[in-house]
Amino acid sequence: MAAIEYERKRTFMGRIPYGEDLLASLTGFAREKGITKGRLQMIGAVQGAVVGFYDSRSGKYEDMVFDKPMEVLSLTGNISLKDGEPFVHAHITLGDDKGQSFGGHLMAGTVVFAAEFIIDEFEGKDLEREYDETTGLALWNIVK
Amino acid sequence: MAAIEYERKRTFMGRIPYGEDLLASLTGFAREKGITKGRLQMIGAVQGAVVGFYDSRSGKYEDMVFDKPMEVLSLTGNISLKDGEPFVHAHITLGDDKGQSFGGHLMAGTVVFAAEFIIDEFEGKDLEREYDETTGLALWNIVK
Amino acid sequence: MAAIEYERKRTFMGRIPYGEDLLASLTGFAREKGITKGRLQMIGAVQGAVVGFYDSRSGKYEDMVFDKPMEVLSLTGNISLKDGEPFVHAHITLGDDKGQSFGGHLMAGTVVFAAEFIIDEFEGKDLEREYDETTGLALWNIVK
Repeated sequence: MAAIEYERKRTFMGRIPYGEDLLASLTGFAREKGITKGRLQMIGAVQGAVVGFYDSRSGKYEDMVFDKPMEVLSLTGNISLKDGEPFVHAHITLGDDKGQSFGGHLMAGTVVFAAEFIIDEFEGKDLEREYDETTGLALWNIVK
Repeated sequence: MAAIEYERKRTFMGRIPYGEDLLASLTGFAREKGITKGRLQMIGAVQGAVVGFYDSRSGKYEDMVFDKPMEVLSLTGNISLKDGEPFVHAHITLGDDKGQSFGGHLMAGTVVFAAEFIIDEFEGKDLEREYDETTGLALWNIVK
Repeated sequence: MAAIEYERKRTFMGRIPYGEDLLASLTGFAREKGITKGRLQMIGAVQGAVVGFYDSRSGKYEDMVFDKPMEVLSLTGNISLKDGEPFVHAHITLGDDKGQSFGGHLMAGTVVFAAEFIIDEFEGKDLEREYDETTGLALWNIVK
């Protein structure tokens, strides 16, 4: 187990407009503001969603498509660096019109109906993702 | 995409007593403390829950009632102003006695069994909700 | 409703290695760093999970075992003192390979595939758990 200690820098509360791609918007915001380390959460609703499940045998995310309006019950995640650029890693829980819930790794293709986010920027040592042989994922290079 | 930058002010950890209405308690706490901007999260359990799913065609929330004990797997949300008063917007994920999960927009009628919350108050420009024509919802008036 | 006001102290972003017990790792981290009050969140994936549902009639948690890989859609919780030691209380939402979601109170036996956490340490008055007669749970002793 390895961790880095950070100071809090800026905090943002914001809204993503109707029709935008949720992951692209969050990533674009982090890059525009130069946020290289941080925490994020968001609630709202989507017009449709694409989420991933990581298949450790194939080393690939399987996409699952929800082609209907859903509430975003929870979206939490972090911002760090991948290939030198701010990278958003977020997981999402969705609720349908019967109150049942679904979710996975947030993928491109999730379209905003209404989205309210809070992002904390952290200050300190950069946190970089790199290929991890055990899992096949791009993880923080801080576990030796 | 539009956002406002905030400073952190106070942080509270607290507990809501058995039998209280979850949304009313969180809203009451924000108003009592004068928290006009903030973040909240909570875990615990409820004796029963009412959650909403927003129907964009009717422009109304459909209520879903869970009349049994549930774990609160996650509750996240924000505090901002609506009609000049502190207003809590929270989404909740619930788990039943088989581990299955459900959820939606937190509504009045959700009754606390045990509730542990953390609230961060933010300092800065007020964030006001107003009617948004595109969605029919009361959203932050910061997207032009 | 009762709450204590805290200052933010340290913030950590970290990663738990493959194969470790999720709850034991989080608890071990809090004890190693001397974190007695705080907030935590985590996303990632597990090789299998054990979650609890509290049965108020028996006053015991019923364990539910998910013996397969799952995404961690959300893990949120808090750190406080129990029997004088840092104690992690976390609830988890899990997603399977069909995108369906499950969850409960995080129990020992949940094995990490990949885990990225953020922990905020708070500074201020100690927050102690003690037996609560109404619920049968160990709750914060701040509600009179």
